[in-house]
Amino acid sequence: MAQKVLVTGGGGYIGSHCVVELIEAGYQPVVIDNFSNAVRGENELPESLRRIETFLNTKIEFQELDLLDKSGLEKIFSQNSFYAVMHFAGLKAVGESVEQPLRYYRVNLTGTINLLEVMQAHGVHNIVFSSSATVYGDPQKLPIDEQHPAGGCTNPYGKTKFFIEEMIRDQCNAEKDWNAVLFSTSTPLVLTSRARLVKILRESQTTFYHMLPGLPSGDESISTCLGNDYKTLDGTGVRDYIHVVDLAKGHIAALKKLKDGCGCKVYNLGTGTGYSVLQMVKAMEKASGREIAYEIAPRRSGDIASCYADPRLAEEELGWKADFGLERMCEDLWRWQSQNPTGFSNGTV
Amino acid sequence: MAQKVLVTGGGGYIGSHCVVELIEAGYQPVVIDNFSNAVRGENELPESLRRIETFLNTKIEFQELDLLDKSGLEKIFSQNSFYAVMHFAGLKAVGESVEQPLRYYRVNLTGTINLLEVMQAHGVHNIVFSSSATVYGDPQKLPIDEQHPAGGCTNPYGKTKFFIEEMIRDQCNAEKDWNAVLFSTSTPLVLTSRARLVKILRESQTTFYHMLPGLPSGDESISTCLGNDYKTLDGTGVRDYIHVVDLAKGHIAALKKLKDGCGCKVYNLGTGTGYSVLQMVKAMEKASGREIAYEIAPRRSGDIASCYADPRLAEEELGWKADFGLERMCEDLWRWQSQNPTGFSNGTV
Repeated sequence: MAQKVLVTGGGGYIGSHCVVELIEAGYQPVVIDNFSNAVRGENELPESLRRIETFLNTKIEFQELDLLDKSGLEKIFSQNSFYAVMHFAGLKAVGESVEQPLRYYRVNLTGTINLLEVMQAHGVHNIVFSSSATVYGDPQKLPIDEQHPAGGCTNPYGKTKFFIEEMIRDQCNAEKDWNAVLFSTSTPLVLTSRARLVKILRESQTTFYHMLPGLPSGDESISTCLGNDYKTLDGTGVRDYIHVVDLAKGHIAALKKLKDGCGCKVYNLGTGTGYSVLQMVKAMEKASGREIAYEIAPRRSGDIASCYADPRLAEEELGWKADFGLERMCEDLWRWQSQNPTGFSNGTV
Repeated sequence: MAQKVLVTGGGGYIGSHCVVELIEAGYQPVVIDNFSNAVRGENELPESLRRIETFLNTKIEFQELDLLDKSGLEKIFSQNSFYAVMHFAGLKAVGESVEQPLRYYRVNLTGTINLLEVMQAHGVHNIVFSSSATVYGDPQKLPIDEQHPAGGCTNPYGKTKFFIEEMIRDQCNAEKDWNAVLFSTSTPLVLTSRARLVKILRESQTTFYHMLPGLPSGDESISTCLGNDYKTLDGTGVRDYIHVVDLAKGHIAALKKLKDGCGCKVYNLGTGTGYSVLQMVKAMEKASGREIAYEIAPRRSGDIASCYADPRLAEEELGWKADFGLERMCEDLWRWQSQNPTGFSNGTV
């Protein structure tokens, strides 16, 4: 019988891609989501999961549930025997977190404490957690490896991610039958810049704003490049982008690692290569066959010049390696964008 | 009319001493405590508060309340108009926190999130918070000043203190009418070593275990000095001790600072002088008139050689300075111990 994996926030961008990979790897995902980010589709399913059901001709077990609803969480753990939890749920907007820190601490921290407590009560001791770039602050060296110090984040969102990492690490330390994989260094690049690029594969273009807001819109609007005076090859910010499918496959590799009784492990999931905003523009122009108009604006406060991860440990210990490069990312991004010009709201697959 | 100040954990060691100082400074303390540390005395009051009532011939408003009971917290904020909150409540045992991290994260973090949310909902935007030494980890320089980096703590207890500091700092940053004083560097020395010394002023001798467990017991038992091979003047660990009454007076000075709309401030409350375990032994021998037998044991894992704070900023900005030195601390400690050989359990003042 297929092993059940609880996916929190599984209607969201990374979560839903992991659901695809879980199914294809023979696991049985059970998804919870509170629709704070996921778009609601037909049958009260997140639109992302509805599309996956159609695409894979399968049914996905889904429940609308907020991690702050601890009794609801208790119930789903009573009704299922989970091998592991993949934890994606949480608020994720850096700017919003600065304005509403208490909301971020409540949702992300208390939500995770609820989850860990219910896992503990029900003997589920395996977890995969995706953290955020901001936990590293300004990188002390590049590429960022798993020994890079964490905790240097300056916004509440990033702090919650770091605090959650610490909670999970401490729990694994206290109870030796707990196992965790934290995608720590990698996730920065996923949930911020990488996600901003590939997010559009399955979500609305309105979420695409980072170093070059508006880049993949394909319309007549002019994109804005935030800063061209960084110490990089062409002055624009360098980030490490990863194809969301590669990322999801890394999460499956982590599930297998948990089987070994690995304790608490941290891995980077990246390509190991950083690309500048202007390199992205070129790649998107190639993928779309259109010229992309852009203008240069001042740096955004808090952005750093370069950030990319060293993924070699993941290759050594998880047997995982990114398959797709920037060209393929841009092609897939462009295809999805062309087919879903208004994002999920038009309801097509 | 006297300004009301909510004191969370006000039945505990530092909290109860602050209650005394609040009353003497003309404030009206309203105390909540869940008795997780406070000893229950007559009339369902913490024994510490019962003694204060007798000593000062006054009544103290007290309610048994756990910060995890958010509706109870809502109620007390509805019934009172608070000028400020002094936040002492929380679990505080380093070793226990390593064994039960989820419990520490639940109680300390979610408890504080509840408190901050209810403060926000009721327009109470002034808070004084006592943090812990462990947030600094191994000091990078001595004495520790307010610019010393925080976050280097390795145990869940210390991490919760650091995370709470960050939450309060972020909230003050988000809402400019919030004001906070965090006793960050100082508290290490208070809640760990300093507290361990002066704790006995008002609590049971069984809690006195740090660098020299058993030191002030005054009986025939032999005390144990944990390590005499540190790089210090005599090889034993050096700590910064403060008289709990000085500490409490610092908290009152902080309340006054909040009036200025100070934003989020961090101050050290210390004497600025570190003393070694053997210096403490001598001082206790002098205070008690007895010889103290001790033996040397190996260092305890995680203990550092020296730790003491630079209190000059508190003097400059709060107008506060420690009045009592080690001699007076030991005298008071010895007097309390002599009068309360079994701690609070004998019920005398």
